[in-house]
Amino acid sequence: MTHANALPTIEDVASAAERLAPVAVRTPLISSPRLDEITGGRVFLKPEPLQRTGSFKFRGAYNRISRIPLDQRAGGVVACSSGNHAQGVAAAATLLGMPSVIVMPKDAPAMKRARTIAFGGEVVEYDRETDDRDAIADVIARERGAVFVPPYDDFYIIAGQGTVGLEIAQDLAALGIAPDVVIANASGGGLVSGIALAVKDRFPEARVMTAEPAGFDDHARSFRSGGRERNNRATGSICDALLAATPGRLTFEISSRIVGEGLSATDEEVARAVAFAFEELKIVVEPGGAVALAAVLAGKIDLRDKVAAVVLSGGNVDAEMFARCLAVA
Amino acid sequence: MTHANALPTIEDVASAAERLAPVAVRTPLISSPRLDEITGGRVFLKPEPLQRTGSFKFRGAYNRISRIPLDQRAGGVVACSSGNHAQGVAAAATLLGMPSVIVMPKDAPAMKRARTIAFGGEVVEYDRETDDRDAIADVIARERGAVFVPPYDDFYIIAGQGTVGLEIAQDLAALGIAPDVVIANASGGGLVSGIALAVKDRFPEARVMTAEPAGFDDHARSFRSGGRERNNRATGSICDALLAATPGRLTFEISSRIVGEGLSATDEEVARAVAFAFEELKIVVEPGGAVALAAVLAGKIDLRDKVAAVVLSGGNVDAEMFARCLAVA
Repeated sequence: MTHANALPTIEDVASAAERLAPVAVRTPLISSPRLDEITGGRVFLKPEPLQRTGSFKFRGAYNRISRIPLDQRAGGVVACSSGNHAQGVAAAATLLGMPSVIVMPKDAPAMKRARTIAFGGEVVEYDRETDDRDAIADVIARERGAVFVPPYDDFYIIAGQGTVGLEIAQDLAALGIAPDVVIANASGGGLVSGIALAVKDRFPEARVMTAEPAGFDDHARSFRSGGRERNNRATGSICDALLAATPGRLTFEISSRIVGEGLSATDEEVARAVAFAFEELKIVVEPGGAVALAAVLAGKIDLRDKVAAVVLSGGNVDAEMFARCLAVA
Repeated sequence: MTHANALPTIEDVASAAERLAPVAVRTPLISSPRLDEITGGRVFLKPEPLQRTGSFKFRGAYNRISRIPLDQRAGGVVACSSGNHAQGVAAAATLLGMPSVIVMPKDAPAMKRARTIAFGGEVVEYDRETDDRDAIADVIARERGAVFVPPYDDFYIIAGQGTVGLEIAQDLAALGIAPDVVIANASGGGLVSGIALAVKDRFPEARVMTAEPAGFDDHARSFRSGGRERNNRATGSICDALLAATPGRLTFEISSRIVGEGLSATDEEVARAVAFAFEELKIVVEPGGAVALAAVLAGKIDLRDKVAAVVLSGGNVDAEMFARCLAVA
């Protein structure tokens, strides 16, 4: 296995892309005349709700789990996740013939829990405010001989998520277009670090930015202070997928160097973006998957005459929360 | 202009594809491990909700309107539609710098009406049960010098919708896969006839089938009788997009020869398919766009060990109807 402090490079993202090709969806770049009209720019959307398991998380999980040596696979894998990493890990493990246990908060959306089980995962619940999920996972790992699959702070996870950026870069290059800015939702920062590696390799001039829920903008604050800042709260946003307390150590080593700027959006702005995706894009996006789009729609960045790629990172939303978002708009 | 009785061929579909390339979305083929598991086959979905205006109708409308000679464009265009053709015509006319009037039933979904206006169309309402929409359109055409754009029974409309089939055939060929069956929703039959032209050209052995709402299965009954049968009702299905009374004359000349088989699905089965697309595919599909998927999910055709392409034809659904569908499932 790779040393715990090693950082992936563009070559590792390319290797991940080869590994993922037979099992992952190569999601298309979608454009929306309405969005271009609103922004005055040219905006391309990368719809990861169409990805296997409904979010980009499958990419990193499969890339990581497929690197576990055959003689260490018998005990399966264990992971902690509120739902998208959970589904990615469960589906990837099942594809690779391994059992999986997911330590999931009690307040995770019902759909995410049900789908994790449907993809072959065993769910163990914990309380976000009182339990230590890492300790629970640690016990399971030792008792079952299961390999822990971290949600973001891992060489192969980052490289796997980076394939989102590689595909964006390849597709824009094929169109003969260079992006001015690429915006990705951030929680632990695996997605945005991986994307930055791939996008900056092909388009060094492009700005890569994070988008986070208002009040959970640890990346934006960390970029400003230069250190890894923490969020004050662990709950209290409709963006259940984006509540990691602080940027990852490895991910921040990458993102502080080649990302370095962050946007945020309120729950109401996020709900409007979910509704926009329903009405205009016909794509089901969960609140946590719609923050970058929300920031763009709310005018948090001026895209006039610019080319932007915006990642819609996931679509695992309950019917009830979806209806709530449509009602706000 | 082409003679009113001429039938398009694969060459006309290819010409339409060239015309559409700069303005239409080349929708991807999507696969769903869950759907493959349910059917025991390999099912590819063609998601036209991701198309410009949210349905395949933009393809035919743009192909048709772009063939109007420059000296006949001043009076704009007029069309009759419950909503998807309406949006396609309005958007295509606007792109080509022409005004458009849409004669739309009073019971058309509010979203379809609003979007038609947003795309630049002027809406004139009529009553499905008592008014003659064609007569209304005829008066508008004469008064304004507007060119009538038929919803399906037209050389260029059929050729334009055929690009859906051309893309399916090209993408499957690129994967080295031949489809056993291709299923498309049918109302007037423009989509399925066009698709059949393109699919049969590349894959002569493939079966092409219609999918229709139960009680509005005029294609299936016409295929059996050999003549153009009519539906008994004009309203009474949640599939507002699929209520044409009978197959078109030109479309049936094509479809009776190279389609010839039809499936149907009840409103409840359709609602379940809309919910399946929400949960598993993360695509917003309207009831009328989900009938083929509904027939597949309800086991109306045995796809075990078969390769199938299923068209999701549109995604223009109100939040209220969408919630109703999710509640049924």
